[in-house]
Amino acid sequence: MKLPRPVRSVVEQFEKLPGIGPKSAQRLAFYLLHVPDHVIEDFAQSLTQLKANTKFCEICHNIDEESPCFVCADPRRDTTKLCVVENPLDVLAIEQTDTYKGVYHVLHGVISPLENIGPDQLYLRDILQRLGSVEEVILATNPTMEGEATALYIEKLIRDAGHSQEDIKVTRIGHGLPIGADIEYADNVTLARALDGRREI
Amino acid sequence: MKLPRPVRSVVEQFEKLPGIGPKSAQRLAFYLLHVPDHVIEDFAQSLTQLKANTKFCEICHNIDEESPCFVCADPRRDTTKLCVVENPLDVLAIEQTDTYKGVYHVLHGVISPLENIGPDQLYLRDILQRLGSVEEVILATNPTMEGEATALYIEKLIRDAGHSQEDIKVTRIGHGLPIGADIEYADNVTLARALDGRREI
Repeated sequence: MKLPRPVRSVVEQFEKLPGIGPKSAQRLAFYLLHVPDHVIEDFAQSLTQLKANTKFCEICHNIDEESPCFVCADPRRDTTKLCVVENPLDVLAIEQTDTYKGVYHVLHGVISPLENIGPDQLYLRDILQRLGSVEEVILATNPTMEGEATALYIEKLIRDAGHSQEDIKVTRIGHGLPIGADIEYADNVTLARALDGRREI
Repeated sequence: MKLPRPVRSVVEQFEKLPGIGPKSAQRLAFYLLHVPDHVIEDFAQSLTQLKANTKFCEICHNIDEESPCFVCADPRRDTTKLCVVENPLDVLAIEQTDTYKGVYHVLHGVISPLENIGPDQLYLRDILQRLGSVEEVILATNPTMEGEATALYIEKLIRDAGHSQEDIKVTRIGHGLPIGADIEYADNVTLARALDGRREI
């Protein structure tokens, strides 16, 4: 296999990205050989500007063009509610629902011993510095093993810091059947969680 | 949804690539926000160098660092055999088998009326200029509807130019069961082709 060097170089770059295997990487590189020059230049330019023109919010660690981010800079947000999420895309997903008016805290990952990610590799301990006016912490990490463990860790962190349940309520985002789903096809764990999380109507 | 502008720009660039949808594009852009600066710079640089440092071979239209390409520049190749393929990746795939010693002709696509690609959008008619010393043309376009139609078109083109079957043999790459496959699970068309293409042992 004698891939021309400049093509091989692009293939290697694409292969580094998550979810792109060697075959896809080759296909993408050869695709780019056929697009007009300005398309590739725009691509390269947007990559170099990506980090130069974005900032991590100094308050919640969300990603935005400015720090503080659009949520933290908004005086109408309810700072008594703090929603802890794994990454900035989760912030955007929750913002799209247009139901949450509190503020966020972005961990940038989850505790994952297998990947050598402990609490110190995340924006985790500085949650404690943000609890001043907070009345409720909503733990919205993913319903995965790592997400659950991270949620439990944060709950313990808050309690160990001396905040009682009356002082600061710690809640976990609701789990159960997604809307439109079929009970017949739901997996056991989801169904058990859905029964557990039943509410009066 | 308020994606920061530089992130949105990268998302849009990824979305243009084949096989990458809006969700993957977002994931890739946010992934890049967490990689070291030099990784992104390398990526951007490899993109800008992609087209600057590659050439289309003036003979066979393969892609390489030099023109003529490594196949056309090799005096040991058998120029009596011409293998017509859809794209440069097909050349590499056939080269990897290490069984073909002839030369190539890269069409850079197939005839596809649905995508408005006719013979004039491909390196198709200039096959006729390469038939001087050729004794066999192997049509190795993909076994898809477009690939078959393109193969038939090229065969007709060669015959219409006055080359008889004795003069230039036109063959189609073999179709049938892939090695390791199970007759039981083969689709009808492949099985019919396999029966049709049976050979004495």
